[in-house]
Amino acid sequence: MIKLNAGIIVIGNEILSGRTKDTNSNFIANKLIKNGIKLEKITVIPDNEKIIIDTVRDFHKYYKYVFTTGGIGPTHDDITSESISKAFKKKYSYHPQAYKILKDYYPKNEFNKGRKKMAKMPEGSELIINPLTIAPGYIIKNVYVLPGVPMIMKKMFNLLLKNLDKGKPKKTLTIRTNIYESVMALELSRIQKKNKKCAIGSYPYFNYLKRKGGVNIVISSWELENLNNIRDQIKKMIKLLGGKSFLVYK
Amino acid sequence: MIKLNAGIIVIGNEILSGRTKDTNSNFIANKLIKNGIKLEKITVIPDNEKIIIDTVRDFHKYYKYVFTTGGIGPTHDDITSESISKAFKKKYSYHPQAYKILKDYYPKNEFNKGRKKMAKMPEGSELIINPLTIAPGYIIKNVYVLPGVPMIMKKMFNLLLKNLDKGKPKKTLTIRTNIYESVMALELSRIQKKNKKCAIGSYPYFNYLKRKGGVNIVISSWELENLNNIRDQIKKMIKLLGGKSFLVYK
Repeated sequence: MIKLNAGIIVIGNEILSGRTKDTNSNFIANKLIKNGIKLEKITVIPDNEKIIIDTVRDFHKYYKYVFTTGGIGPTHDDITSESISKAFKKKYSYHPQAYKILKDYYPKNEFNKGRKKMAKMPEGSELIINPLTIAPGYIIKNVYVLPGVPMIMKKMFNLLLKNLDKGKPKKTLTIRTNIYESVMALELSRIQKKNKKCAIGSYPYFNYLKRKGGVNIVISSWELENLNNIRDQIKKMIKLLGGKSFLVYK
Repeated sequence: MIKLNAGIIVIGNEILSGRTKDTNSNFIANKLIKNGIKLEKITVIPDNEKIIIDTVRDFHKYYKYVFTTGGIGPTHDDITSESISKAFKKKYSYHPQAYKILKDYYPKNEFNKGRKKMAKMPEGSELIINPLTIAPGYIIKNVYVLPGVPMIMKKMFNLLLKNLDKGKPKKTLTIRTNIYESVMALELSRIQKKNKKCAIGSYPYFNYLKRKGGVNIVISSWELENLNNIRDQIKKMIKLLGGKSFLVYK
């Protein structure tokens, strides 16, 4: 069985400077888990050729699917495509179909150098169609190269998702309780030890205004057919500790 | 001159599953740039001992400051502190001061194993005080270990920030224009080539409802005393291309 895992490389100075919030990786993360693909790493790196090359080579080795966002526009600071060409020792050149799509879209005297640049990519790439603003993304080896603008990225991701190998979605279930994490830690750890085929995560919440808090306990598993048995053990624990539990399905 | 750079390691399955949006790294990014510290990488990894060890060792070598968020609570899935102890071959043991803070805080018969666990960290760590929920973070070598809950993390980051070496804040200035990126790409690239001491970033925006878009051009520099000269060159270019420009100071 091929391991269905993935990594995301977010390329952009604007994320590292704090100017822009990366919302793309959360979007992709949610899509992947629902399609049985395990996201194992997200990395945010600057628009720097050497760093892009090293990171792409690294991710290419470790993950079945690699998604990059950012740096494929028409301006001088868009260096993702040239860098990925170098990472895979491919010629950085016009993709005939991409060139045609862009040429047909722009009025003849407005198909300038910047716009032509958006047709340049590693030789041998397969296009990812952009239904919104024309300029395509592409696939080279196991790397899916997407733009950074969230609205466009999301449309394109939904299109490429259709062609990915998919696994069984990860089963997941959340129990929200008003008991504090530190009160239940020991008991929860015992339940985890008895149920090794699932992961039990514990995420405290606190409403400072209401001065009330508690924990979201997340049970998740790639293997189990249902989580009812573990859910019941946790509900029982909460009851014994004098708390309330609320189920939040996801 | 020591290079004032930094890396962030976000530790948590809940980010990779898409359940939780990481807002901590954007907060830290904004603080760092204003204090003259260059953020060079953000990585999101799972609660996995080997991956935490490898990533911490790696970041420890490359960055002056490393910040980790997540995985230092009382439950079984909080494995950050034990993993970082192993990364640096330090004993994972009770920090006397942290133990005392927690012991004094909880009623005697409620200072249970989970709560004691929050006093365990790599031997030789220096505490980062938690003014909100008591359980401290800590510093070991150049690694600043913080909790994942944003409200708590932010309070603690503001405290530790006081003790970091600081540089000159990065000068930055945004010009918003109604001209499309692909129209100005060539001219903008010429301006960038003439001004190598600054970085010129170009970030398209598009309001789909209004069917209007344009670009935010961000000029930034660690070196230059002011950006007025470059600002004027860009405004001139926009005017020549028939567009409007609006300055957005940051």
